[in-house]
Amino acid sequence: MERIIAKYYIETPYELEKAAAVLAGEQSSGTFVAVPGETEELKQRFAARVEKITPMESVSEPAIPGATAKPGAMYHRANIEVSWSIENFGYNLPVMVSTLQGNLYEITQFTGLKLMDIELPSSYADNFIGPRFGIAGSKKSAGVEGRPMIGTIIKPSIGLSPAETAALVKTLAEAGIDFVKDDELQSAAANSKFEDRVDAIMRVINDHAHKTGKKVMYAFNLSDEVDNMLRRYEYLVKAGATCAMVSINSVGLSGTKKICDQGELVIHGHRNGWGMLNRHPLLGIEFPAYQKIWRLAGVDQLHVNGIANKFWESDDSVVRSIEACLKPLFNQQNPIPVVSSGQWGGQAFETWRRTQTTDLLYMAGGGIMAHPDGPTGGVIALQQAWEGAVKGLSLAQTAQQYPEFGHSVEKFGNK
Amino acid sequence: MERIIAKYYIETPYELEKAAAVLAGEQSSGTFVAVPGETEELKQRFAARVEKITPMESVSEPAIPGATAKPGAMYHRANIEVSWSIENFGYNLPVMVSTLQGNLYEITQFTGLKLMDIELPSSYADNFIGPRFGIAGSKKSAGVEGRPMIGTIIKPSIGLSPAETAALVKTLAEAGIDFVKDDELQSAAANSKFEDRVDAIMRVINDHAHKTGKKVMYAFNLSDEVDNMLRRYEYLVKAGATCAMVSINSVGLSGTKKICDQGELVIHGHRNGWGMLNRHPLLGIEFPAYQKIWRLAGVDQLHVNGIANKFWESDDSVVRSIEACLKPLFNQQNPIPVVSSGQWGGQAFETWRRTQTTDLLYMAGGGIMAHPDGPTGGVIALQQAWEGAVKGLSLAQTAQQYPEFGHSVEKFGNK
Repeated sequence: MERIIAKYYIETPYELEKAAAVLAGEQSSGTFVAVPGETEELKQRFAARVEKITPMESVSEPAIPGATAKPGAMYHRANIEVSWSIENFGYNLPVMVSTLQGNLYEITQFTGLKLMDIELPSSYADNFIGPRFGIAGSKKSAGVEGRPMIGTIIKPSIGLSPAETAALVKTLAEAGIDFVKDDELQSAAANSKFEDRVDAIMRVINDHAHKTGKKVMYAFNLSDEVDNMLRRYEYLVKAGATCAMVSINSVGLSGTKKICDQGELVIHGHRNGWGMLNRHPLLGIEFPAYQKIWRLAGVDQLHVNGIANKFWESDDSVVRSIEACLKPLFNQQNPIPVVSSGQWGGQAFETWRRTQTTDLLYMAGGGIMAHPDGPTGGVIALQQAWEGAVKGLSLAQTAQQYPEFGHSVEKFGNK
Repeated sequence: MERIIAKYYIETPYELEKAAAVLAGEQSSGTFVAVPGETEELKQRFAARVEKITPMESVSEPAIPGATAKPGAMYHRANIEVSWSIENFGYNLPVMVSTLQGNLYEITQFTGLKLMDIELPSSYADNFIGPRFGIAGSKKSAGVEGRPMIGTIIKPSIGLSPAETAALVKTLAEAGIDFVKDDELQSAAANSKFEDRVDAIMRVINDHAHKTGKKVMYAFNLSDEVDNMLRRYEYLVKAGATCAMVSINSVGLSGTKKICDQGELVIHGHRNGWGMLNRHPLLGIEFPAYQKIWRLAGVDQLHVNGIANKFWESDDSVVRSIEACLKPLFNQQNPIPVVSSGQWGGQAFETWRRTQTTDLLYMAGGGIMAHPDGPTGGVIALQQAWEGAVKGLSLAQTAQQYPEFGHSVEKFGNK
């Protein structure tokens, strides 16, 4: 019978074998005392199995509190692998998450536990379609080839009217932008009703497409309750929109999958709230595991922060996240990594050097909107940055050859 | 205009006022550079506002990594309050969560950030019904008055067939149990199809109700994708079930609310995954804030761990969680606190002493199923424990007067 394997990074004041066995017991057939009915046959079929324990360093202070340990105890770290038969939960994503990421974080035997990766059996490919559009579909829809999609976020995050937003989109479209998105804080503010914003923006985008053949992709934030999201989705389809944005952590797995399953729009998965799940090195979940869950749900575009971002995340972690999105999962479409946070074009060089890919949605907010030559200059500067980077030019060489990117460097280069 | 207030416990190497201002800016109209369109009028209407800063202790080591701080910096802790106009997101729960719990956890100015509580404006009462059943509806449905509902979890968590599960439910019903639930790991295992389990169990429960007038509440774990949950919900209603269980973190906010909105079944909200969101003292969310979000979604029963539980959570935290559920929110029904984890009746005394309430769903898994006199003895022992506690007897006195509880003490008293 096929099994799902979860890889954890753990810390425990107990023997590693014992702590791992508690995890496996708690998350399958065990409880705190033996109970009638827990037969050998049942255990054989449904018990989680500790597959592998790789001891790592030991430390003298626990990473997170709540363990029962003797004074002076050492805390042992390890990478462990635990497996479950797919007979336990089949192809039910929420129950898979409850099994792999449920009560185990509360177990006193651990002073640290992070889900690092998941290995899915091949039958999952028959039960989950994955991203309908992914990299190829996103780029094709926006008419982009041979370079990253260049995108931006409407800023100020919240407060602009539909007309003001549409005017900005017009400027950006004329500047050659590929992608624009609502901020995750904006869905339907008092002065920007969702439908009004769609009408105003799609008028601009459809006009521009009619004139130029290029349809700018706009990710409208439809995050809300299920029925409202479905209503908004239909509205978007009728208006000729190509993309919808979901704040995946806030909406949750079942709601997000319901939206992905509609299959007509590219789904932009915004991971706001991610810091809560990931920032501690020994609590929560790492992106390689996280992105697999959302790929199964069908998300087409996934945020990964960016090189030298304004947030806490390290470049190494960002590079790992980009690589995770670009690794194959069965024969499914790959989600396009959404590079964002404090980006202005200067990071294109290091991003290219470390990932050697243009299969990115490369987003700049302030980096475009606050460009010295205005948003038009901002879009051009980003295209120039990537052109330079892929050609093998340095940042300085690119700044010299391309005036708009040069102005970016003057304004943002010391950030 | 009404405002929503969020209370955070923060840690920062920066001046408290500066760090708080960054949070407010990031989560409303600001970005990393000033942008055109960010007018004073717009800021006035949509900017988040730092309402209050209460400095706390300073420490020499950061609680979580990722901050940009000078070597030797001190890390200042504070309770802060930030408010947003409801014009920003209205009555959209996912966008409210993205605003109050979104990118802010990734801000480098913080080395710790926890959402402690939320104050909701009164217009929320007109837009969210809250729990349809709550404490009163749950107790009434199960025929319980003047004492906690006594419940148990089917153990082994996973592996029993529908017939085996139903046989156990029969034993428990005859012993006088009020409530039984699926484990969160069990929804539809290979040997326990959801519908088959419903058929087998509801036959027992309906028979028992027919004979005795008492309908045992069974929380069937319908957690899954939205359409499957709705299908299962309908199946439950037709079968005469009174309750459905949702793993709220795994299913997510939109999916859970969709289920609560059906309004015919009591919704048992299982918070597995909670440790990931809460275990670190300076990362994530505290229960007083968390439970409000799920009350707005309409969850009727909410897990709070229990006194002397088998997990990491302290008694103080459990008591605070019970109190949070019992505090009024508008004029809505209160969710019934689900006390569980390592409970066997011995904790009834301390639970009563500290909360003085019987408005609880008091759950014991192994504590009932592994009772020396069998599950029947386990149920009786729990009722006796609560009877003794409410009468003002001590554990020892209750053990002496009531034989089944006495046997519990012999078996579990040293745990």
